[in-house]
Formats: sequence, C-alpha cells, structure tokens
Amino acid sequence: MFDSLHEECGVFGVWEPQTANVAKTTYFALYALQHRGQESCGIAVNNDGLMHYHRDLGLVPDVFNEARFEKLGNGTMAIGHVRYSTTGQSARHNAQPLVIRHVKGPMALAHNGNLVNAMELREKYELEGAIFHTTNDTETIAYTITKHRITAPSIERALEAAMYDIKGAYSLVMMSATKLIAARDPEGFRPLCIGRRSNGAIVFASESCALDTIGAEFVRDVDPGEIVIVRENGKMESIRTHCGSKGHLCVFEFVYFARPDSHIDGCSVQRARYNAGAILAKECPVDADVVIGCPDSGLEAAMGYARESGIPYAVGLIKNRYVGRTFIKPTQNEREDAVKIKLNAVKNTVAGKRVILVDDSIVRGTTSGKIVKLLRDAGAKEVHMRVSSPPFISECFFGTDIDSKDNLIACKMSVEEIAEYIGADSLGYLSVEGVNHIADTARCGFCNGCFTGNYPVDPPKTSGKNRFELPLSQSPKAMKKREMAKNERENNDE
Amino acid sequence: MFDSLHEECGVFGVWEPQTANVAKTTYFALYALQHRGQESCGIAVNNDGLMHYHRDLGLVPDVFNEARFEKLGNGTMAIGHVRYSTTGQSARHNAQPLVIRHVKGPMALAHNGNLVNAMELREKYELEGAIFHTTNDTETIAYTITKHRITAPSIERALEAAMYDIKGAYSLVMMSATKLIAARDPEGFRPLCIGRRSNGAIVFASESCALDTIGAEFVRDVDPGEIVIVRENGKMESIRTHCGSKGHLCVFEFVYFARPDSHIDGCSVQRARYNAGAILAKECPVDADVVIGCPDSGLEAAMGYARESGIPYAVGLIKNRYVGRTFIKPTQNEREDAVKIKLNAVKNTVAGKRVILVDDSIVRGTTSGKIVKLLRDAGAKEVHMRVSSPPFISECFFGTDIDSKDNLIACKMSVEEIAEYIGADSLGYLSVEGVNHIADTARCGFCNGCFTGNYPVDPPKTSGKNRFELPLSQSPKAMKKREMAKNERENNDE
Amino acid sequence: MFDSLHEECGVFGVWEPQTANVAKTTYFALYALQHRGQESCGIAVNNDGLMHYHRDLGLVPDVFNEARFEKLGNGTMAIGHVRYSTTGQSARHNAQPLVIRHVKGPMALAHNGNLVNAMELREKYELEGAIFHTTNDTETIAYTITKHRITAPSIERALEAAMYDIKGAYSLVMMSATKLIAARDPEGFRPLCIGRRSNGAIVFASESCALDTIGAEFVRDVDPGEIVIVRENGKMESIRTHCGSKGHLCVFEFVYFARPDSHIDGCSVQRARYNAGAILAKECPVDADVVIGCPDSGLEAAMGYARESGIPYAVGLIKNRYVGRTFIKPTQNEREDAVKIKLNAVKNTVAGKRVILVDDSIVRGTTSGKIVKLLRDAGAKEVHMRVSSPPFISECFFGTDIDSKDNLIACKMSVEEIAEYIGADSLGYLSVEGVNHIADTARCGFCNGCFTGNYPVDPPKTSGKNRFELPLSQSPKAMKKREMAKNERENNDE
Amino acid sequence: MFDSLHEECGVFGVWEPQTANVAKTTYFALYALQHRGQESCGIAVNNDGLMHYHRDLGLVPDVFNEARFEKLGNGTMAIGHVRYSTTGQSARHNAQPLVIRHVKGPMALAHNGNLVNAMELREKYELEGAIFHTTNDTETIAYTITKHRITAPSIERALEAAMYDIKGAYSLVMMSATKLIAARDPEGFRPLCIGRRSNGAIVFASESCALDTIGAEFVRDVDPGEIVIVRENGKMESIRTHCGSKGHLCVFEFVYFARPDSHIDGCSVQRARYNAGAILAKECPVDADVVIGCPDSGLEAAMGYARESGIPYAVGLIKNRYVGRTFIKPTQNEREDAVKIKLNAVKNTVAGKRVILVDDSIVRGTTSGKIVKLLRDAGAKEVHMRVSSPPFISECFFGTDIDSKDNLIACKMSVEEIAEYIGADSLGYLSVEGVNHIADTARCGFCNGCFTGNYPVDPPKTSGKNRFELPLSQSPKAMKKREMAKNERENNDE
Repeated sequence: MFDSLHEECGVFGVWEPQTANVAKTTYFALYALQHRGQESCGIAVNNDGLMHYHRDLGLVPDVFNEARFEKLGNGTMAIGHVRYSTTGQSARHNAQPLVIRHVKGPMALAHNGNLVNAMELREKYELEGAIFHTTNDTETIAYTITKHRITAPSIERALEAAMYDIKGAYSLVMMSATKLIAARDPEGFRPLCIGRRSNGAIVFASESCALDTIGAEFVRDVDPGEIVIVRENGKMESIRTHCGSKGHLCVFEFVYFARPDSHIDGCSVQRARYNAGAILAKECPVDADVVIGCPDSGLEAAMGYARESGIPYAVGLIKNRYVGRTFIKPTQNEREDAVKIKLNAVKNTVAGKRVILVDDSIVRGTTSGKIVKLLRDAGAKEVHMRVSSPPFISECFFGTDIDSKDNLIACKMSVEEIAEYIGADSLGYLSVEGVNHIADTARCGFCNGCFTGNYPVDPPKTSGKNRFELPLSQSPKAMKKREMAKNERENNDE
Repeated sequence: MFDSLHEECGVFGVWEPQTANVAKTTYFALYALQHRGQESCGIAVNNDGLMHYHRDLGLVPDVFNEARFEKLGNGTMAIGHVRYSTTGQSARHNAQPLVIRHVKGPMALAHNGNLVNAMELREKYELEGAIFHTTNDTETIAYTITKHRITAPSIERALEAAMYDIKGAYSLVMMSATKLIAARDPEGFRPLCIGRRSNGAIVFASESCALDTIGAEFVRDVDPGEIVIVRENGKMESIRTHCGSKGHLCVFEFVYFARPDSHIDGCSVQRARYNAGAILAKECPVDADVVIGCPDSGLEAAMGYARESGIPYAVGLIKNRYVGRTFIKPTQNEREDAVKIKLNAVKNTVAGKRVILVDDSIVRGTTSGKIVKLLRDAGAKEVHMRVSSPPFISECFFGTDIDSKDNLIACKMSVEEIAEYIGADSLGYLSVEGVNHIADTARCGFCNGCFTGNYPVDPPKTSGKNRFELPLSQSPKAMKKREMAKNERENNDE
Repeated sequence: MFDSLHEECGVFGVWEPQTANVAKTTYFALYALQHRGQESCGIAVNNDGLMHYHRDLGLVPDVFNEARFEKLGNGTMAIGHVRYSTTGQSARHNAQPLVIRHVKGPMALAHNGNLVNAMELREKYELEGAIFHTTNDTETIAYTITKHRITAPSIERALEAAMYDIKGAYSLVMMSATKLIAARDPEGFRPLCIGRRSNGAIVFASESCALDTIGAEFVRDVDPGEIVIVRENGKMESIRTHCGSKGHLCVFEFVYFARPDSHIDGCSVQRARYNAGAILAKECPVDADVVIGCPDSGLEAAMGYARESGIPYAVGLIKNRYVGRTFIKPTQNEREDAVKIKLNAVKNTVAGKRVILVDDSIVRGTTSGKIVKLLRDAGAKEVHMRVSSPPFISECFFGTDIDSKDNLIACKMSVEEIAEYIGADSLGYLSVEGVNHIADTARCGFCNGCFTGNYPVDPPKTSGKNRFELPLSQSPKAMKKREMAKNERENNDE
Repeated sequence: MFDSLHEECGVFGVWEPQTANVAKTTYFALYALQHRGQESCGIAVNNDGLMHYHRDLGLVPDVFNEARFEKLGNGTMAIGHVRYSTTGQSARHNAQPLVIRHVKGPMALAHNGNLVNAMELREKYELEGAIFHTTNDTETIAYTITKHRITAPSIERALEAAMYDIKGAYSLVMMSATKLIAARDPEGFRPLCIGRRSNGAIVFASESCALDTIGAEFVRDVDPGEIVIVRENGKMESIRTHCGSKGHLCVFEFVYFARPDSHIDGCSVQRARYNAGAILAKECPVDADVVIGCPDSGLEAAMGYARESGIPYAVGLIKNRYVGRTFIKPTQNEREDAVKIKLNAVKNTVAGKRVILVDDSIVRGTTSGKIVKLLRDAGAKEVHMRVSSPPFISECFFGTDIDSKDNLIACKMSVEEIAEYIGADSLGYLSVEGVNHIADTARCGFCNGCFTGNYPVDPPKTSGKNRFELPLSQSPKAMKKREMAKNERENNDE
C-alpha cells in the first residue's frame, strides 16, 4: 500500500543436536527476519535424510502453529525462508524452501537474490527435457546443481561447479540428506552470516538480528563467493574457489532493508543510518526548529541529522502499532486514507514549527506527499524533506522490486519538481558519494546500481517479475496474440 | 475410520466456449466425482496458454469458493482432479492437477491410476538430471511426455510415444497451451468417458454421473489405449495406436467404487450391483426373514438378493446424513464408537428377525463385526452376512489402496473363520465366476487381480505407498541406518 | 435451497458421573440429532455450578473440536442444542443453549418448539424493566421461570408455575447449578425421551436415535406436560401437574422430521412412513412399472407403496453423498442447477418405464417440478407423483418454518393444477384421515394443523420469524415509517 | 506475555449522514484505538431503529472484513468497542457493544471503565427478576437505565437518573433507536472526546488519535459528569446535571495507556511523557553515557530525560515490528525467551557504555530484569533504570487490570531490593508529586490511587475479575464447597 521498496527474501539454516528442536529454532529466526519478506514463508526439516516441509502465503506466526510443528517433526537440520516476490507471481507454489529429489536423494534450498541469467539456463535445461514447477530462480539453481551432481563427488562440489554457471545475486542456504550448506555469490550482493549457539548448533542467517533472537553468537559473515559446509557431525568446512572479490554488497541493505540492530560485513546498520543522516545534514542543511523521522526506517537518520545540525530531534509521526495486518481498504469516497490509518502527526511536536522530515527514500512520491500534508494539517509552518539516500534512477536486478524505471519519480522529475509534487518547502537527497561512506567500518565494496546505473554484474537481457509466466512457443502468430493479451494478464493470480 | 477400500482418483476436463465458466463447470463435475477421492482436489484453467490453478487438501466445496474462482479467472479449457492418495503421502504438494512448464510451454495433467514402472522411469530420468517435486506417478508421466516432446511434432504425438514407456493404469486428462487431451491406458483399468453440452462444450470425466450433473450428454467411453484430442476450435480427433485390447476394467468399479447412476463401458453400475446380489442369492442362499443392505454401496446388491431369493427387502441400517465431515474421535473409554456414530440399526426392521446383511466387501473385518453386533443389539435373531464380491486375496497395483496383503482378512482366515470373527451366523461371498458376470452388458474385459492374483500387466518390483520417500543413496551404511529408522518414518507427514 | 420444510431444533441433556465426559457425550448425541437443525449448535457444561458453554453458527462437527472441548472442561451435567431458526434471525446470538444468571445462580436452557404467547409475555416483562438479548422464545421462557423463582422453593417448582404462563410447543432441557430438568408442553407437540447408560448416566433427547448413538438404553418418552428432574446424585423425579392430555404430537415428525431409526411415543418412525406409503397406495393407485422414492425421506413410503401395490420398488434417484456442505451456487446462466447437483436419476431404473415417484411433501413445488424433469430426461415414459402426507393448507405455529401461507402451493392451486405445474402425469396426496393412522402403534394424539387449520392450542395474534426484531415504540409516525422500511429489512442479518 | 498493565477498553460512536458508511468509519476509528484493548471488539450499526452488530474475540482487522460489513449494512449511527477484559472472563459473550431490547425498543452500549457498585446493583435487580447474560458492568448499566426508562420521558433522562445509581468509572457511548449518546462519569476517570467531520458527522472517541485517523476535527472533551445527545437530525445537546467536579482523570492515561499523538483534557500525551522524563532526570540524576527508552511507551520519557540531563539520547532497543500477533511460545528448554523475540539490544548504542534505561512502569519486575540482562549481554557497562511513574502500591478499581496487590513488586520490596532483583546498577522512580505535574496544561485533576491508595470514589466491597462468575446461592454448604473448588475454577474458560 505504501510505495516503498521491498527486499526479496530472508534465509536461515541450522544444524543442531537432536536435543533441540530445529523447526522451532528456525521459526524464531524467521520471525526476526520477517521484515525481509512478508508474502510467504516456509520451513524444511531434515530428519535422517527425509525432508518434511511446510510453506504457505502469510506471515511466519500465521503460517506456523503447534499442530504444524508436530507434523514437521524434529531432525538435525532445518532451513527456512521468508519471501517477498520479485520473480514469479505471489503464488503459494513459489514459496520456499524448495524441496526436491534428484539423483542423489533429497535436496532443499532457500535463496535470497536474483539471477541475471536464469532465463538462459531455463531454456537450456528445458531443451534437455527439464520440467519446471515454479517461476522462481531457486528452481533454476536446483537444476544447475543437479546437472553437476550426476558427476560431482559431493553436493558441495556440485554447487562449486554450478557457481560457474549461475550469475547474479544469491545468498543460499541448502540441505542435502546429510549436509547443511550456505553460499554467497562472488559479489556478496545480499548479506549472510554465521552464528553458533552454546549447545554447539551452527546457524546461517541473512542478518545478525536473527542470531540475537535465538541466543546465538555471531561468528562471522559468509565471504562473497564462499561455500560453507556443515557435516552430519557438526564439523564446518569452507570452499573458497569463488572468493577473492572485495564484493559489492547492496548499499540499500544499510539504508533501509536490514534491521538497525543487525551488523553486516563489519558495520552496524544503525551506525550507517545515523551516519547517513549526519552526512545529509552537511550536504543539505536548512534552517528549522525540529528534525523528525519517518517511522520506522527514517528515525536513525533523523537523529544523525539532528545531532550534526544541532536542531532538536523529536517524535513527529506515530505509527499505528497494529499496522502490518491486512485491513479493509478505504474506498475512494471514504475519508480515511491508508496513510492516515498507519501514521498520525504529533501536533505537540510540529504545530507552528519549521519541520525537517527525514525519510530513507522516495519511490513514486505519493506517500511522501501524503505525509507532508499530514504534517501541514497538524500545523507545521514549513516542511523540509531530506532523504538519506540518492535518487533512484535505475532498476535493480539483484533481489529488490525496483524492476522498472516506470515507477521511479526521479527518472521523470528534477529534485525541484519532486519537491513541488510532494508539497515540501525544500527537498534534499544524500549524494552518491555520501551513500558510499555511510557504512564506514564495512570491509566490503557496494553495489549502488539503482543510484547510478552501473552494475557490478551485467544485467539480464530479459527481466520483469513475470518473465517465466509467458508461453515459450515461438510462432509469430502466438507472439502477436500474446502481445494483445498482455495487459489483461498482469492481474492474473494463482 | 471404516476399513473400506479406496479408489485413487477422479478426473475431469472441459473445452468450452468462453461464454461459459470452465472453472465452475469443473467444480460441479468434481463435486459429482467426490466419492472417487476425498483427500485433496484441484482445478487448473487454461487462459490463452497461461495456466492458473489451485489445489489443496480437503473436499471440493471446502477448497473452492467464489474468491478462489475470481483468482482462477476464466479460460477456454480446464481440468480437475479429486484424489485419495495411493502413492505418495497425503500431502498438499501431491495434490493434482500437476501444472508444469516444459520446452514447449505449459502443461497440466490430472491422472487416475497407478504405474507399475514409475520407479524405473524416475531413476532413469534422475540419472539424466531430472528433479522431482512430488512423489506421485503423474510427475513421472509428465517427464516421459516431456522427453518425447523435444522431438515430437505435437503434444499428442509425444503422449503417443510416451505410452510405449509408461506401464500400468492411467486415465489421463491433460492440457497444453492450446489442446485438451484425454487418454486411457491400453487395458482401460480405470473408466473415462466423453460428453457434450448443448453449448458445444466437450468434456471428459471418470464417470458419466459427472456428465449428468453438468447437463452434458454422454457421447461414448474413451477406448482402452485411445488418445482423444480437442483443439482450440473444439474439433475432436482420436489417435488409436495403442488401441486393440478388449481391455481389463477394474471390476471393483462396478462393485463399489463408481456411483450407481454411472454407466461404464456399456453397463449401468446399478444394474451390475443388482445382478451381483441376484447371483449371490443363487450361489449362497439362506433361509431368513429380511434382506438389508449396508449403506450406501450394499443397497443395490441387497435388493437384487431380495428379489432373487423372494425374501423381503427392507431398510435395516440408517447412515447419519452428516457423516463425511471430520469429527472428534471417541477415545477408548468413551462408549461411542465410530460405527455407532455413522450407522444405526432400525429396530422395527430387524428385531426378532433372521437378517441377511449384504455388503460389497470385507477388508479387515473390524467394521463388519461391529455392524453385526449393532444388528444383534437391535434384536436380530440371526445375522447372515453376504458379500457381493469374492474374498480379497491379493494386492492391487492399479490405483486402489489395497497395497499389501497384511490388511486382508481373507489372506489369513477361511470363510468359516471370518464368519466367526465377525460374529455372523453364516457368511457367503460371490464367486470369481460370479463377479465376472455382474456387468452383463459391458463390452470390456475385467481385471480381477485382487480376487485371483492374476494381473493383466506385470506387477512392479517395488511397491508401497511411500516408495519414493526413501533416500536413494546406495551406501550399505545408509541402508542399515534406514532399516533401523524405518518404523518411525511411517508416521511422518508433510 | 430445496423448498423443503424445516424442523426447528433438537435438544439433549445428560447427567453423568464425572468419570465420563459430558461434553463429548452431548457432542455425539447432537451429531445424531443434526437433521433437526443445521444452522447453529451449542453445548453448556455444568461444572460444580459454573456453566461453561460454546455455541456458534455451523454444523456440530464444524463448531466443536478438541481445543473447544478443553476449554469447555468437564462436569456432571451438560445440555446441547441444534437449531434451525424459526423465530429470530439466524444470528449467532440466537444460538442455544441460553446460559444466564438469575437470583438463584446460573441457569441453562435448550428448547425445541414455539410459544404462541411469547410476544405478550415479553411486553409484560419489558414493562417491569426486563432487557432481552435475543429474539428467541427461550429467553422468554427463562424470564418466566426466573419471575417465579424469586418465590418458588425450587427451580422445578418455578418451572411448574411458569408452565401456567407459557403457551405453545416446548420440549425443554435445562440445568440449574445442581439439577438437570426436562419438560414437555401439555400437548407434547415435539418429542422428548429418556435414556440411561450402563454407567448410570441419565439422558434426555429429542429422538431415540441419539440414545442409540451414545449407547444409551431407551427408558421411556417424557409425557406431555411432565417435568422430569435429575438431582446431583442422579436421582430422578417427576412432576405431573400439567399431565393428563393424550397430547397432540406433530404428525409431521413421523412423515419427515424425525430419523427413521427413532421411536416416538410408542411408534417406529420407519413403520409410520412405510404405513403412509401403503395407505397412499390404497388411496391413490396407478398403473406403473416401478416405484421410486425421493431420497432420503421418501424412501420408506415408496417401499410401503411398492409392497402394497405389488409394483416393484427400485432406486431411481441417487443423492450426492457430499451434499450438506455449502457450495458455490450456480448462477442463472450456468447450466447446472441445485437439484442436478444434489440428485441424479438412475437411467437403468427409469428409462422407458412408467414411474411412481413418492415424496413426503410438496411445499412450493419448484423442486418437485425439477425432479419430475430429471426423470423424464432420463427416459421415464410417465411420472406419477405420490405424496405421503396431505396438502399443506395452513401455517404451523409450533416449531416449523411454515410460517405463512404465501409459500404453500396447495393454498393456491388444486391438485390437478399442481400436477400440471410440476409436470407430473398424475398426482396424489395422502388423505388427512390416512395420515392420522400412519403411526398405528403410537399412544398419543396428533396435531395436523398444517393440513387442516385446526390447532390444539390457539394460534398467536402476531407471528412471523422476525416478530421481535421490529421497534416497539408505538407512535403512528414510527409505525408508518416502519411500514415503508419493512421490505428492505427482510434481508438484514447480524 | 510482558508483565505490563492493561487499559480496559476504547469506545467510539458516530452519527453520520447516510451517504457515508458508519460501520467503516467505526472500523477505522477502532483500528486507531486498538492499543486500548486487544482481546475482543465489536461494532453495532443503527439502521432505522434496527441494530445489526458483530463482535468477537480478536483484533479489529481480524474480526471484520468486507463480507462482515455487507452483513452489518449501513445506517445513520454506529458505536464500537475494543476490549481488554478486566471484569468477566475473556469470553466472546462479554464482547461489546452490548445490544439489547427494553421497553422502549433497542439499545446499544459500549463502555470503558469499571463500576464500584456493580455487585450491589446486580443483586438488587436479580431480586426483581432480572436475568444476566454477561459478567461485565455494561449489562448492569443497561439494566439501571432500563429501570428508569419505564417512567423517564426519554432515554437521556433515564441515563441522567441512572447516573445517581451507578458509581465508579465509565466513559459510555450508546444508541437508542433514534439517538446517539455519550456520557462520562462525574470524576472523568477515563477520557472521552467529541469530534466533527466536514460532512457534518459527529463522533465520540476515547482518544483524539481516532479523530485524526478518520479525518475528524477535535471539538472538545466530554466534561466529567456530562451527557451529550445527538438527535436523528444531527443536532447536539448536553445535560450537565452531574457536572461540576474538576474530575480525577487516571494519570496513567498520560504515562502509558493513551497514544502519544492524543490530547486528553487539554494536554498532549507526548508532552506529558516528555515532561515525566524531564522531571525524572531532576529527581533521579545519574552519571552516564547514553539514555535509551524501552519501546514504545518509554521513548518519549527517555528523550525528556536526555534533554534535561544533557546525556545523549539514542535507540538502544529494537522491537520486532511484527510483535502483536500470537506466536508459538518457546518452551522452558528452548533458548529463545519471549523478551528476546520481541526486543533486541542495539550493540552499536550500548556496548561499552553506561546506559540509562527509561521505562514507564514496573509491575512484577520480570520483564525489566530480562531487558537489563539483554543490555548487559550487548556490552553495556552499567545499566541505570529510571521509571517515569511512581511505584504501584495499590489496586486500581477504575478500569485497569491491577486488580490485586499480589502482582505488584513495589508492595513487597524496597526500591533498592527491586534494583537488585532486576539486576540494575541503580533504580529511580518518578515521585507522586512529580507525576501530578507531568500533564502541565491539563485542566482536570488526577486519580493517582494506584500510587497512593487514595481514591476519589470509595472502592467496592467485593472485587476481582471473576466476581460475577461464582454461584450466588447462600447456603453455608455451597460456600464451603465453593471454597474448596475455587482454585481449580481459576483456569476455567468459556
């Protein structure tokens, strides 16, 4: 409903002695990673080589309950996934983990990211007789590994070989009958870290906040290009064939996607956001009475802005604590709008004041406009909007849903025009130079393709969320027919 | 809860001009076929080459509702399936229709029956890099067709070629992007018929009762070995390469599985059941006051028995109309038992009488014993049980759940011992000779393997419901480990 | 969906030593009484004077589950109710048992029937300051008992006194903190019987089929006008102040409402239906080839007709076993109609035959017309309809939903006209004289008001299902306004 | 799960021209008031004198959906309620609004607060023949109004008279067939305000944040003791018979219950919380590096403390955004505890620092102890806890769930002992003098009974959540029996 960006997914994996319950450990970890994907979720448990799993549309606490855990049973390993669809319809059959059987037995995969050559690989496999059940990249990864598995001496060697074939962003957690494996693409687009519990359990998670929630200690990040294997006995090994690059972590993980209490590749997310605000204050100063942040992701940057500028920070917007649940949408002629239902201005903070409103990004600008209006209605004299990241000017092909320039206001308007469009007295963005320095303690490089159009990996020839949903037959007649039917197809669902 | 037999599945397919709603037509047809499978169901709609589908555990009216139909949308073709699991766990991911994409685009399949060489085919495909998402035979059929599709000029020619590879029982309804196809294995183990509606729609259904429900006229049965193709424009064609055998229809379709208002291969099911009762009366006469049938499938045979013997027919057992819904199971120390909740004796009919109780079959004998007791408690002086089919002495490999001799009382006891076990004053079964003549107007031959151990197609080397759920790895260590873990695995679920 | 009659309710009560589970006993009994009411159900458990209860819209197996039973807990008494609304909207707050607190503590009531003076009593109590939460008669009964309870020495004496005030039909099961009580109005309009289990439990139920289901022995019917009390220690007593009348049991209980395996007031329901068919054969003979019954309630009468007439009985209509669940309604321009979805003709039985179709009643005639068409479409040469009860010519005020003459076809057409309307070759009804003799062993008299317009108790001045839903204010302005708004109100729901 | 305090309820009422949808307006307002009660909710719509309503256990967005709104229909008035049970079990039949019919027609009531003489009134009415369906005070209020309504010329005059009888806390919104009425008890314990929308609609709400959400302008608070009537034509009137007291608003509304964006009786809640922190900083200073607040209610006070003390404010605890949904509870031997699942420390903020942790209150101390540990585990060198309200030393009888001293740690330990118990290096509470001055612009007086034991209205003789659930019968035998059964009863539920 809000015109915000979405991260594709969160992944988790655990090897744990049988005395604990791997399904529940995964459940609590996914609960901590819920912000990375709210459409569907799933857990697969490996019990002596048999994979029991459940996945469905919905939030983690809605999809799983005690009865479900009884059916899942226990085991020594589990992997889990939360998903916001970027590739493939938001259908139940696209939920992960993917659990399949191949020549060497069962395999389960959970994947965060986006391949750039999934289409090419699918076409190749289909010509060899492959059938696909889903439209997500994970199945393509599964096939690639399987193809190599026929000859490879082990699952990890098959994965190592597959990593020469698959291009793009992937933070992957997978299980064979006897091993738990984590891998990160050579650029390290998406985060992935390793933790350990005092009972000896080894866990992999998209973000360190999941480790805190389950009481695991942070060990280290999985390196870009690294494959980490946990054997049946809990022994951990690493394959570093694809390592070497300093990597290009998505900088927007720091700006917006990750939770502020996570650490990624050596930097606290909170620190990076605070820095973003402070740099923004230097780059785009303005005389005002109060600095407020847009909940939740703009708060840290607002504090940084306030501290750097010396203008007092205060809470100017309250978010309804119960937002997140589906609710009845107000119709056009009803007065309530979605923004009002979710956010309310604090009159005591803004009335009669010149307000600096800090938010993490502007996508289409509609929501920003409504928030500016909310503040004016509450009596703000001036509203100066400051954005703690640069303008979006290009698509992302690596696991977020900015899949087309069509929805990006910064592709169509100048900063001044946007300011006018959203009704702000002034508008300032963080510079690309600035955003590159927010995660000052990080040991990795960054992908800032959405701000610059420069990508560390070549973008795909065909893209779009539904690129696998179209018929493949090549007759010109079908092509033409398809063209005409295209518009109506957009709304189709499972 | 009752120890009865279960048919595997019911299938349905429709090609219909866009003015109608193919999803709803399928819904009503599946509702009429619900008796063929109560575990899961599904519908796939073909809209200009895009397949939208929904499938879930549950009965047809519980799985589908108006909101679901809106999501499914409309199209020119649809196929549907109801399922009682014989191969594969009763898990949601095994629900059908199977919808996949292969080299030539999308394909949807719904299948009734059981292959005898699925294991061999799976192993072969896995060695070529295939991955399997389900444990049902339908995916194996899909792969076989796909393998041939790479070179075949059309989907129907790929199916024709595939039918040389797949062995066993299959009544299949499938869709490609542009065609609706029905096929029946060369023995015609499971029924499949063709109908037509006055709007020009062409439909395929497991039983003719589905045609009546949707107001379609019966055209003819699909012949054993026949492939029937309906093109985009509604034109119907036939490929008869695999035809020729008179066929071996499962005779138990007449005895129990099918609805009495259906006609299969030229014979009314009701007529066959009535005949079964009449032959039974000749073969196993007994002096008594009243003939009653066990609802619902024993009623027709009871009437046949009554007419032939001259002993009056009456209603002696009432079935609770609301049975079929899940209900709380009575615990051991509660007085109510499941049979009492479902059935009640009519004292007015049986008190003080010598009663002939006609039922279609005895599997384990537990339920029969309880029903005999019910009648005695209601005052029956004598209870003579008559069974309108021969004793089960062998497994079925062609789509029912008699997958092991372990549960078959007739493999362990003589008729006299069974009579004593169930507490009947006498017990008589229909002879094999007799059962072969019940469907007197049918133009096909019969499979009576469960009564004789003689099968028209060689049985598989490996069988059992969960034969694809075990790890494939071949190390002796794993084999041994598996052996030990085997017992616990039985209870595992999705 | 079918234009059939509906019984209002079924009631059940149990006193049982704590070793059993009274809630579950009630559950299984309600399951057996489900045919008496499918809209809502409820159970109240008395645990040492505290009443825990649950009630909701839906069928018994859908409303109750193990989690619900855990919340209900156990106790020494319970009462239960299934309901089809006659008075009051089909709203959740009208579900029973009613559980209230009055001057002497808690009281729970479950009631089958309809008062004729509920309106007058409500108005009287409201003038004394009473407030009403529901629009059903049970709350009026509760108030009447409560008014007397202030001075009465015991709950049973309060009920005894209340029975002078309340007029109409009521079979009542109730609990105080320490007693289980059953009562039947002086005419005994609705059935109510007493049973006993081998563990000493005493139960009350609307029909004896509920006793069979829970393994209780039939003791006797509650007499018209009788109050039966079960004390904390299981001791049973009777108050017979209001007894004396031979009673006027609703004869339609035998014709249609009750289950054929029940015995009411000394007669088997099955026997009565069979007799109805036999008398009908004498009164309305016709030359034909086969007699078929309309499932489920017309089957017994059809057999009686067949035996008496010498024309063979056969199964001519098959009812879908899964009917009863809500399903998608076919829209006008879809071919499937509700009757086709529920019923199918057996061609083998009717094709080329002169068919006698026996059903229990005709209300509006729409369904009968569709069934006749079904038979003709299946090839019936002639269809002669025979009805095993007389034509409905008057409303019922005693607990069924024939609440207005508007829907009764027999009020508007002659028998010949009805025959033409439904498309039958001939039509014959059982006579009033005939229906009075169907329950030949019953020891009670009958109410046949719906067939004659003669009622054993004076009908109410105001009637109609929603008579308590209208504002009570008496201003002429409001009256007029109400008149205008009336039509739209009909559709309103909770 | 957290040992926090709970507000009883939130209420809302609206009169609106038919062009809008009063049910939806109420829905969005209740969504904004959800923080005042999460157990159950309900909406009643008045359509020309007919009240349609729905209420159930669950959150507002879970209980209501489009289908529900269709059933509710539209009207010119509606009232709504969110509830956290203080009196009566958390059962569905205790959900509000209460909708009843009395001598003058229908009446609907929604109530926030607690009476102190409900028991006495109930006993009196029961002796006059009243029956009670619920165990909440609202039904007692309904009876009191009804008793006066028999003779009173109007509903508002009946309410005016009733207000002499009912004692305690009540903010009430009610509807008759033609009027919408709001009333506040003479002490004004609970907030209630009036708003107006640009379409002429008049609304009443517990808090002004609900007005903002639905786009209504704040008009004024309802005065303590005032009755406000809105007639059918939207004309607003006031009865001030019970007005005069400056009032005793619950001061904890400012500290914790209300949303920070609300204004109550002339003061911003945010301002009051900020003030509380500032006064606390003066009263309980400590040398430290950073001030953090406990989300969500401690944040404002933490900022006030920071500003006053000059110690920097930062975000030290992150709350999982999806908390609020039911989730699987970790068992004892699982590592995850509920606090860890909901909260996580930000290492970047607290590691190596001396931390001041500000929270609004301490009830049992368990949660505070876990949060202190969380901070220490994240590396905090010192943790100094500061509480922005005085210690709880007495029960509340006016609408919160501090119903017994048993759970109040401050009744059993000194401040030093509590500090040790929760593991803090120091602990400081706001003084009673201090809390009285936080809402510095409020025009009302305050109830601070929970901090002092001094109440503006005499407390009830009998209290406790379940006080109406016990049998009323007075025999010594029953009393003794009840005594013994008491312990087990605690756990009983609907």
